[in-house]
Amino acid sequence: MAQVETRARYAQHIILDTRWMDNDAYGHLNNVVYYSLFDTAVNRWLIERDLLRVADSAAIGLVVETGCRYHAPLTFPDRPTVGMRVAHLGTSSVRYELAVFRNDDDTASAEGHFVHVYVDRESRRPTPIPPSIRDALGTLRMPVPQPVP
Amino acid sequence: MAQVETRARYAQHIILDTRWMDNDAYGHLNNVVYYSLFDTAVNRWLIERDLLRVADSAAIGLVVETGCRYHAPLTFPDRPTVGMRVAHLGTSSVRYELAVFRNDDDTASAEGHFVHVYVDRESRRPTPIPPSIRDALGTLRMPVPQPVP
Amino acid sequence: MAQVETRARYAQHIILDTRWMDNDAYGHLNNVVYYSLFDTAVNRWLIERDLLRVADSAAIGLVVETGCRYHAPLTFPDRPTVGMRVAHLGTSSVRYELAVFRNDDDTASAEGHFVHVYVDRESRRPTPIPPSIRDALGTLRMPVPQPVP
Amino acid sequence: MAQVETRARYAQHIILDTRWMDNDAYGHLNNVVYYSLFDTAVNRWLIERDLLRVADSAAIGLVVETGCRYHAPLTFPDRPTVGMRVAHLGTSSVRYELAVFRNDDDTASAEGHFVHVYVDRESRRPTPIPPSIRDALGTLRMPVPQPVP
Repeated sequence: MAQVETRARYAQHIILDTRWMDNDAYGHLNNVVYYSLFDTAVNRWLIERDLLRVADSAAIGLVVETGCRYHAPLTFPDRPTVGMRVAHLGTSSVRYELAVFRNDDDTASAEGHFVHVYVDRESRRPTPIPPSIRDALGTLRMPVPQPVP
Repeated sequence: MAQVETRARYAQHIILDTRWMDNDAYGHLNNVVYYSLFDTAVNRWLIERDLLRVADSAAIGLVVETGCRYHAPLTFPDRPTVGMRVAHLGTSSVRYELAVFRNDDDTASAEGHFVHVYVDRESRRPTPIPPSIRDALGTLRMPVPQPVP
Repeated sequence: MAQVETRARYAQHIILDTRWMDNDAYGHLNNVVYYSLFDTAVNRWLIERDLLRVADSAAIGLVVETGCRYHAPLTFPDRPTVGMRVAHLGTSSVRYELAVFRNDDDTASAEGHFVHVYVDRESRRPTPIPPSIRDALGTLRMPVPQPVP
Repeated sequence: MAQVETRARYAQHIILDTRWMDNDAYGHLNNVVYYSLFDTAVNRWLIERDLLRVADSAAIGLVVETGCRYHAPLTFPDRPTVGMRVAHLGTSSVRYELAVFRNDDDTASAEGHFVHVYVDRESRRPTPIPPSIRDALGTLRMPVPQPVP
């Protein structure tokens, strides 16, 4: 059975806004918007730690894969908390796992992943994740939950 | 000369987020995004005061005119404060004036307006602004600044 | 090895626009935008065949899972073609597989999936896919490619 | 009385898409989306004529003012035509007037304006509109309609 994702299973928690236009014709947050929450959480975390300078970092993360499973709706003006952890840290790539918690909910309304490959800004060829970023990403790892015996 | 708009010239102040994808190819918040900030500020203010229930209010505000002048750029992850006041309150329509303040700035990076006409949800014909909304909007009026003699 | 996805592997092809603001700070289509292309392709296909009336269909599709792998960038004003096929058709759910082809490219710049669960509009409980929709979705199935011996 | 705007009153006509997520909770195109149509029409026209190279043009247009009046709704999957003309051409600035025509409608569903100031890409200081762009913009001027006597 799938692990139920709760806030404690994520290393960082970032509170974000919803916008009026995020609601679609069915009156709930459109499925696309969740990816903007993921994208925003990851990049804000990097920028606020000075690990990404959008205009001039030599190595930048390009997105090569994303995904999301939607369990329950959100509606503007809900305020989601995005939970964030690192699930895999390779030479050039990092896989984030993220979850969206509606307002004060402890169980996730949506769960997703987001994979960055680091490339040289000019050549756009893969490059090792810079050590300062690698160290910071290491703090986002979480222990894998053990099955109850 | 144009009045310089500062925070004190607005009746309400709503702090909002920017998103990674708000930045356009020139590395700054795209001009379109400001209107989403306006839209979000107005509707959040109404919803949080229970003056708008998106799914079932009998009278809803439709947008008939908007505008914005851009003075200085914002860049993700800046956090804008949206200032909001009511400049005109008619039988069926209300004109909001709004401003965007970058992070802790006291002078506006952008100024705009946003006009709602209230309509019956079903017929979409103009209808008087309901009294509870009218009363609340009245609290958003600001004194017109007097010219220095 | 992963099957290379080409136009011929999709049952429907829908040409869409990009928008100036789709480009992000790195000068390419933001990863989030691809999901709006998927969402738009699926719903436009349904609406144009009168299989979805947004305001009053009794059964509507809610999105429960999406994903995308990004192979190569697009840049505004590229015009993407979205390829669309049905990979799984259950009692209440349908899994679409989609691909984005840049301008006249024959190989996919991105590949994704999009799962709708049909629910009753009012109760939001799962409901069987209506027969007219099921029949139409059946035309989007594609033969599974056989491995070369 | 306001001039009724029709297709013939615009020098260029650009057909664009709507997207599923453009519809907001009231089931119509959100007011914000119109500005993305304006932005897209102007920039696409410039890029397709090689008058703007997003990554390296020395002079770029920054948006200093926009506005829109909304007359009638659009709904996804409507396909709008954006009409475009130049109303004022200064040393460094150009004022576009734009209109949105729903599907085959001849009268505008929305009318707006969009003002670019040309700046040096690096210094972001105003610079004269380059001659090749000025010449092209001149072709977007329209005769001012004369009042019927």
